[in-house]
Amino acid sequence: MPNAIVLVSGGMDSCVTAAMALDAGHDLLLLHLNYGQRTERRELEAFSALANHYGIAEDRRLVVSIAHLAAIGGSSLTDSSIPVSAADLNSQAIPSSYVPFRNAHLLSVAVSWAEVADADLIYIGAVFEDSSGYPDCRPAYYAAFNEVIRLGTAKGTIRIETPIIHMTKESIIKQGIVLEAPLHLTWSCYQGSDEACGVCDSCALRLRGFQLAGVEDPIPYAVRPRY
Amino acid sequence: MPNAIVLVSGGMDSCVTAAMALDAGHDLLLLHLNYGQRTERRELEAFSALANHYGIAEDRRLVVSIAHLAAIGGSSLTDSSIPVSAADLNSQAIPSSYVPFRNAHLLSVAVSWAEVADADLIYIGAVFEDSSGYPDCRPAYYAAFNEVIRLGTAKGTIRIETPIIHMTKESIIKQGIVLEAPLHLTWSCYQGSDEACGVCDSCALRLRGFQLAGVEDPIPYAVRPRY
Repeated sequence: MPNAIVLVSGGMDSCVTAAMALDAGHDLLLLHLNYGQRTERRELEAFSALANHYGIAEDRRLVVSIAHLAAIGGSSLTDSSIPVSAADLNSQAIPSSYVPFRNAHLLSVAVSWAEVADADLIYIGAVFEDSSGYPDCRPAYYAAFNEVIRLGTAKGTIRIETPIIHMTKESIIKQGIVLEAPLHLTWSCYQGSDEACGVCDSCALRLRGFQLAGVEDPIPYAVRPRY
Repeated sequence: MPNAIVLVSGGMDSCVTAAMALDAGHDLLLLHLNYGQRTERRELEAFSALANHYGIAEDRRLVVSIAHLAAIGGSSLTDSSIPVSAADLNSQAIPSSYVPFRNAHLLSVAVSWAEVADADLIYIGAVFEDSSGYPDCRPAYYAAFNEVIRLGTAKGTIRIETPIIHMTKESIIKQGIVLEAPLHLTWSCYQGSDEACGVCDSCALRLRGFQLAGVEDPIPYAVRPRY
C-alpha cells in the first residue's frame, strides 16, 4: 500500500482525517508537532493513544518540536500572557489563538519527511467554513502550498490532501462514527487542563458539532453549554 | 526606517544580501537557522561576526534551531554517513548536499517573525543560475511562496525579496565590494573545518566567482584550485 503522512495534532479533525487516509488504502506515517502550545502534553498523549489504537509502528511515528514558534510569540496558544478568548462563533475576526503562519511550519516538516520516507501524499485535517477563521486554513492556501511543493522538491510528486476542508463539524463527526474513528481519545480544547473547558473557540466548535449531529461527545468537559 | 528581516546563514551570498537591504534603507532584523548541518558552529560564528560588524542590537537577532531536519536526514549536510561530494559545476543533477525542502523551513520562521515584529520584507540570498541546482532556489519557487504568504498570514503584506537570484557569483562579489560588505567574515564551505576545503560545491562556486572577478578571496583555504 502506498505511504501517506498524516498530520495528527490529537484533535478530532486530524483523528477523522487519519481514519479517512486509512480507509483510502494508505499505509500511514503519523507526524505530530509540538510548538510550545499550552496543551502540548495533553495533545501528545492523544497522539500516542491514536497511534496505538491504529497499531502504527514506532518507526512510522515522528514527533518534532518547533518550540521557536513559542519564542516568536504572537498567539494566546503559545504566550501565557495573552488570554485564550471565549468563543465568538459569529465573528469574522482572526482570534487570539492564531499562531502566526503555523501551518507552513507543520507542512514543511511533513514535506521534508515525505521526500525521505517515500510518501507522495500528506493529509492535513484543515477545516475552512466551520472553523476559527485562521488565514492558513483556506483552500486557496493549500493550492498555493502545493505549487510551492511541486517547484521546491526533488521528487515533485508530493501533494497535500485536505479531505475535510469543506465539511462542517457535524459531518466530520458523522464521518468519524461511520469509520469507527476513536473520537473518545481525542483532545481539542485550547486550555491545558484535564477536562476540556467547554467555552474556548475550539470546544465551542466541537460541542456545537456534536449537538447538531445528535451525538454525545465522549470526552469530559468542565461545562457543556449549548451552542 | 521600515523593518526588514534578512536570512543570514553566514555565507557570502547572505552577507551581500544584508548589505543590499541596508543600502535600500531598511532597519535590519537578522535571522539565523541551525538545522544540524556539519558547519553549524562555523556558520553561527560568521553570523555573529556579521551582526556585530553591522551593529545589530541583540533583540534584533534571532537564532533558531530546526534540528529536526537532521533527524529527518536525506542530505550530506546533515547526515555524516553521506559524504559531501566534490564539485561538478557542469552537472544538472541535484547534489547530495540538498536538504529536503529546507528553504521552506527557513522562510516559515522568517514569516512568523515578520508577523510579530512588524516587518513587511524578508530578504534571502538565494542564487539561481550560478548555483548548485537546488529546486528550492528557483525564482518560480519564491513567487509561489509569496502567494502562500499572501493567503496564509493575518497581515497579508509580507513578501520575500531575492535581490541576487539572477546574479552570478562574480557580480555578487563585485556588488559586495562596492557596498563594503565584510566578505572576510563569511563562511561558505560545506565541511566543518577551520579552513575552507576548496573542493566542495560551495567552495568551487565561490572560488570561481572570485577568480572571475579578479579578486583574492580573503578567507583561508586548505587548497585553492583554479575553476
